[in-house]
Amino acid sequence: MSRVLLTGASGFLGAHTLAPLTEAGHEVHAIACAEPPSGAAREGVTWHRLDLTDARAAEALVSEIAAERLLHLAWYVEHGRYWQAPENVAWVEATLRLLRAFAAAGGRRAVMAGTCAEYEWSQAEAYDERTAPLAPATMYGVAKHATHLVAEHFAANAGVELAWGRIFMPYGPGERGERLVPSVIRALLAGHDAPVSDGAQERDFMYAEDVARAFTAILDSDVQGAINVASGRCCTIREMVTLLAEALGRPELVRWGAVSTRRGDPPRLVADVRRLRREVGFTPRVELEDGVGRTVDWWRTRS
Amino acid sequence: MSRVLLTGASGFLGAHTLAPLTEAGHEVHAIACAEPPSGAAREGVTWHRLDLTDARAAEALVSEIAAERLLHLAWYVEHGRYWQAPENVAWVEATLRLLRAFAAAGGRRAVMAGTCAEYEWSQAEAYDERTAPLAPATMYGVAKHATHLVAEHFAANAGVELAWGRIFMPYGPGERGERLVPSVIRALLAGHDAPVSDGAQERDFMYAEDVARAFTAILDSDVQGAINVASGRCCTIREMVTLLAEALGRPELVRWGAVSTRRGDPPRLVADVRRLRREVGFTPRVELEDGVGRTVDWWRTRS
Repeated sequence: MSRVLLTGASGFLGAHTLAPLTEAGHEVHAIACAEPPSGAAREGVTWHRLDLTDARAAEALVSEIAAERLLHLAWYVEHGRYWQAPENVAWVEATLRLLRAFAAAGGRRAVMAGTCAEYEWSQAEAYDERTAPLAPATMYGVAKHATHLVAEHFAANAGVELAWGRIFMPYGPGERGERLVPSVIRALLAGHDAPVSDGAQERDFMYAEDVARAFTAILDSDVQGAINVASGRCCTIREMVTLLAEALGRPELVRWGAVSTRRGDPPRLVADVRRLRREVGFTPRVELEDGVGRTVDWWRTRS
Repeated sequence: MSRVLLTGASGFLGAHTLAPLTEAGHEVHAIACAEPPSGAAREGVTWHRLDLTDARAAEALVSEIAAERLLHLAWYVEHGRYWQAPENVAWVEATLRLLRAFAAAGGRRAVMAGTCAEYEWSQAEAYDERTAPLAPATMYGVAKHATHLVAEHFAANAGVELAWGRIFMPYGPGERGERLVPSVIRALLAGHDAPVSDGAQERDFMYAEDVARAFTAILDSDVQGAINVASGRCCTIREMVTLLAEALGRPELVRWGAVSTRRGDPPRLVADVRRLRREVGFTPRVELEDGVGRTVDWWRTRS
């Protein structure tokens, strides 16, 4: 049990992380840029409202909390824009400043969210953290990769343990409505057409609760360096959309090929998860079909 | 002629850059973290005192100056410490913030100081900007490399031209007294022993005025991307120290081998300067023997 500083706590993955962190016995200081979501009150969690890009406010709060562990999930994530947005640069700065302040306040172990977008995207085999080439094609991927380079060297010099969790394709309750899985669910729930690409792209989907549990397990381990946070299961977009349409009983509303794939969209993004399984000892709990059902149910209660 | 924002203006290389910038007709806004050095007043130069790591003050001043061009030479340079110091991380942040503020204020072209420490240091051939592997071994090199990655992607998206000048071994008047060339000169001028290594390391020395002229030429060109700022001439430390000792007439005071080489010190660091010569059209003016003489003379007037 230790004091954990959690950033992005009201975000998609952050919100799912509160349960496993408190269940592991941690005293959680949850940072969010807005008011905590209603119903977010939870024993063992103290909420702080903070814009991490505000240098002085961030340094003051991180120093005051003086956490032993840091789980940094916050970043700029506006759908569509975040791939190339200049805000990524401000988040490089905010993340490095956060890590410096955490170390200065006596922090011992940090886990930060990286991304599969750090990899060179034309690889056919599963991405291995130690051998896959890093050549990000997007501002988002470059910003995360550069942050990792600096953070890792700084942490080693400062005597802080650092793990860098590269997230692939999380999905589940609370995901932004414009993204693939929620947009299909919302269209079909409303009885509208769901325009999608031909769906041939292969992806590595992981249910959000499993992503949250994986990050908690990494935080509680002594693993350092880059580690993929993914299921290791290859699933095409077509398979995912078909599962969603079946769960909602509206396969006729899916308009295959109505959307062209985004320029530069990689054909295959699947993780090698041996590090996560063997070194952290983590295995996902939620199968794809189950996760899809739960996600659909969550959207039903909100429509 | 355009308005140029020069950072690090009171530093070793910055101070040498004021002359070529104003001679090229630029209106220079010189930023320094301390009072301008005495005698620094010069027609065409407006001085501003600013700590670039102070986020709000930096954003306000850069916005107010609204320069068309940026020459960013400032960085953390405390002798001995800068290779691994955590301050490098704050300078990643300060540099990216500076570039964002410059672009937001309408800036069109930025030239920033990189370093030969970005390269993987075991190469035997001259370092070519386009083919030499980048694998920095130090916090300083990692910080510069990561800054370049983010800055280049951001600038391309923002419509700002960016050149990244990788400096090798500048020497000349105004260099910090603890560094190799000044420390040997000062010892011999005082009649003390000058302990040095065996001097076998090969380096690429460039006289500070030439470095300053090269940066000015790059700023006035349309070259983008990484470009070595160096002489292309291979010179051992032994040759340099021998020249210094001869200029001072005290070769008997040099204690060869009295200092062990720094761990990780590369045997050979020489630049391929074809880009600087052909694309920028720049050739150094000051030969090594002449530069050594001028540097020794400068220290004589101060002892």
